[in-house]
Amino acid sequence: MDAVAAAPGTRERTLDALRAVRPALAIVADDEGLKPFETDAFIAHRETPMLAVMPESEEQVRAVVRACRRLGVPVVTRGAGTGISGGAIPRSDGVLLVMTRMRAIVSLDPVARTATVEPGVRNLAVSEAAAPAGLFYAPDPSSQSICSIGGNVAENSGGVHCLKYGLTTHNLLAVRTVDADGDVVETGSLALDAPGYDLMALVTGSEGNLGVVTRVCVRLLPLPERTETLLAAFASVRQAAEAVGEIIGAGIVPAALEMMDRIVIEACERSMALGFPRGAEALLLAEVDGGEEEAREALAAVRAILERCGATEVRVAADAVERERLWKSRKGAFTALATILPDFYTIDGTIPRRRLPDILERVYALAAEYGLVVGNVFHAGDGNIHPCIFYDANQPGELERGEELGGRILEACVEAGGTITGEHGVGIEKLRQMCVQFRAPELAAFHDVKGAFDPGGILNPGKAVPTLKRCAEWGGMHVHGGQMPRPDIPRF
Amino acid sequence: MDAVAAAPGTRERTLDALRAVRPALAIVADDEGLKPFETDAFIAHRETPMLAVMPESEEQVRAVVRACRRLGVPVVTRGAGTGISGGAIPRSDGVLLVMTRMRAIVSLDPVARTATVEPGVRNLAVSEAAAPAGLFYAPDPSSQSICSIGGNVAENSGGVHCLKYGLTTHNLLAVRTVDADGDVVETGSLALDAPGYDLMALVTGSEGNLGVVTRVCVRLLPLPERTETLLAAFASVRQAAEAVGEIIGAGIVPAALEMMDRIVIEACERSMALGFPRGAEALLLAEVDGGEEEAREALAAVRAILERCGATEVRVAADAVERERLWKSRKGAFTALATILPDFYTIDGTIPRRRLPDILERVYALAAEYGLVVGNVFHAGDGNIHPCIFYDANQPGELERGEELGGRILEACVEAGGTITGEHGVGIEKLRQMCVQFRAPELAAFHDVKGAFDPGGILNPGKAVPTLKRCAEWGGMHVHGGQMPRPDIPRF
Repeated sequence: MDAVAAAPGTRERTLDALRAVRPALAIVADDEGLKPFETDAFIAHRETPMLAVMPESEEQVRAVVRACRRLGVPVVTRGAGTGISGGAIPRSDGVLLVMTRMRAIVSLDPVARTATVEPGVRNLAVSEAAAPAGLFYAPDPSSQSICSIGGNVAENSGGVHCLKYGLTTHNLLAVRTVDADGDVVETGSLALDAPGYDLMALVTGSEGNLGVVTRVCVRLLPLPERTETLLAAFASVRQAAEAVGEIIGAGIVPAALEMMDRIVIEACERSMALGFPRGAEALLLAEVDGGEEEAREALAAVRAILERCGATEVRVAADAVERERLWKSRKGAFTALATILPDFYTIDGTIPRRRLPDILERVYALAAEYGLVVGNVFHAGDGNIHPCIFYDANQPGELERGEELGGRILEACVEAGGTITGEHGVGIEKLRQMCVQFRAPELAAFHDVKGAFDPGGILNPGKAVPTLKRCAEWGGMHVHGGQMPRPDIPRF
Repeated sequence: MDAVAAAPGTRERTLDALRAVRPALAIVADDEGLKPFETDAFIAHRETPMLAVMPESEEQVRAVVRACRRLGVPVVTRGAGTGISGGAIPRSDGVLLVMTRMRAIVSLDPVARTATVEPGVRNLAVSEAAAPAGLFYAPDPSSQSICSIGGNVAENSGGVHCLKYGLTTHNLLAVRTVDADGDVVETGSLALDAPGYDLMALVTGSEGNLGVVTRVCVRLLPLPERTETLLAAFASVRQAAEAVGEIIGAGIVPAALEMMDRIVIEACERSMALGFPRGAEALLLAEVDGGEEEAREALAAVRAILERCGATEVRVAADAVERERLWKSRKGAFTALATILPDFYTIDGTIPRRRLPDILERVYALAAEYGLVVGNVFHAGDGNIHPCIFYDANQPGELERGEELGGRILEACVEAGGTITGEHGVGIEKLRQMCVQFRAPELAAFHDVKGAFDPGGILNPGKAVPTLKRCAEWGGMHVHGGQMPRPDIPRF
């Protein structure tokens, strides 16, 4: 995103307006204090916000939005800053609304199985609060110990267990937002269904474009009685990918079904010495849960399929300690990968599950074409791939080559009937790929919706949805290899 | 809805435009042929459409919408006509788009567990087509043998099993619509997630206001290995309602949890002689499913809870024949109810599950206040109540009194933190209650969304969302008993 200079005097007028908010608002206006807010977890891009505020109540959020609306100043909302597509990267002409001080768990109802929380509450804190009642909050992004519920709603986050339990949008009952006019809009309901258009689903995943999330009621689920975890080694990536299809095709719904390829296995082994099977080209980590018998039955069924599909070794965790050990590789993988090359860049794309073996071969072929190393560690059961592209930022042109390769991989996902994001959002990272994903009528519908919610265009402008004009400028994206579907022909 | 006369010559101009559609379109223009389309299942209201068309392809749908848009003629879309809130009731100044001829099952993919179908495909036909692959389509409205998938999407239909499997919106992967400009808009995706705003969820349940559904990709689920069905009798409605809370609070997720009160039990007994326990004030019908052991464990747990909660008798279906017999009462209940009084009117409201005992007492108190008989047969596990109000249309004023009582019951649902519809939609039936359900910012957001999708206002105008002006005229709805929440105070 290009730095945009605010009109002269705007900063002073905005500061005056924010200082007038009652009760008084925490405002960060000095360079030192603004430094930590320059970027989110999409660290390739940085920008110093004009000002940052840290509201403690919905009333303060309303006052900030009203002031910015009046002055025509953009508002970028930030949760814990763990988003990796740049959705919370500030603007030099805008106010950054930092939601971390709104972190009350408002209520927890074990009979209704719901928790109502403020947006700054950490994801894991919800499950921790629900545990004494035998309940948990299912969506579990790998950043769950620090990421916030408001950010999860804004990005429609997933996690390793969304194969069975769904994305954030599937685990919400009601969401309260402050709209671009500073009005409170309540969406969803505490009951089965809500009449009218489904504005809750619309706001979920809208990356701060349609309102500021100020309160969320999430669905809680009963903790499973029993969990079984297996690790299987394969001599080829294709065999592992085919085993994924067999497990799903057998009618089993694992709680998680994760895959790692050799590059990742070796990096984990080097940094964590977990004693993985030697020489494996791919590992599958599967988890099944439910009632005692249900989990035991599913374990036996998954194990049989893995063996039939050619697994060279299958390990079953005997207890919670071993389970933790098996998961350690998956959860520590991204840290371990930092030992390969100084820099890497994680792609988030999806494909219909049956295309998994093909897309992985395509990823390796593209990596060879670009002369870059790519490792894969991802949610195989969801068809949600996360190729990690390694590069050395000190080598001129490597970052750019890596970004181009990432774009090619995402286009390959779209060609395979998939999408350019599974759970990480579009932010600023994937604006170009949105032009590949969507045809003009869908992009027009997005802009119409944005215009309906935010006619002044002050909420997180420039993120999530590219203008048709920019897509036209980027038109070359459509013709790589001549394989892209014609934009005038529907895809399903 | 008031009859609206089309401008002079409009009918002829529209007929000419429709006759020019290529390939030629089936057009119904004579009074005899239009008769069957005068109403849907909200039979209290009738209107003869200006014209009806029966497209066989998306291209024809596009041509019809484009012609109507150009001429400013409203378009009302109709599926099988089983909707009970009047969403498909025609307009005398509009074209009725009848989708029943678009009924191809385009594809069925057992590995991806999806089916892609045209909107006129019957709900049950999807499960029938999926059965050989061991799969089924979960949402099962009681009209499932005749209602269509397109109508299910438009109304976000539920069914007896949505407690476990969710509403229509939770079982869709992708939806294709024709928008008000006649453009094809693809929403959702065949993969895990779709970037951009969630237009699929927005279109689902929008009652034909945001587009015409032309293709749907639904999620299929593995058929459960084992199903167990129980019927329990209670000496009081409150005990039965409390048992519902206990079952859910124990962490069990039944596939279905239905309740009937004495009025309904007696009507079923009179017309079907099912041998129900004598003198029961309430029956609970519970179903659990899953793997062999899982279903057996859940059966034992539910049975123990029912007995602990004071059930006077618990019957477990020994086989599929007995299961059918137990379900026969629930599925035939609405037919049986016709034996009580000539006319009845079914309400569809939801409440947070824990409020179930209270809301039922309130329903009986309101019925007594209005001097009308009310029977209850409903999805107790979802907190989705369906009070049936009995009246005799030949008695002057009874229909109106019944409708007023229905409105009061829905307002009581909103007071209890619930909503005015669980699964039947708003249509024209519940426009007034929408003013009770929502505050001005939400209603404004609905109209902004409508304006974004259909600036000319030609798609099903006057349904689903009331104008702010009408809500102001109906303002009196807000003050019944002085109990309504203040419209300026958020509700959760």
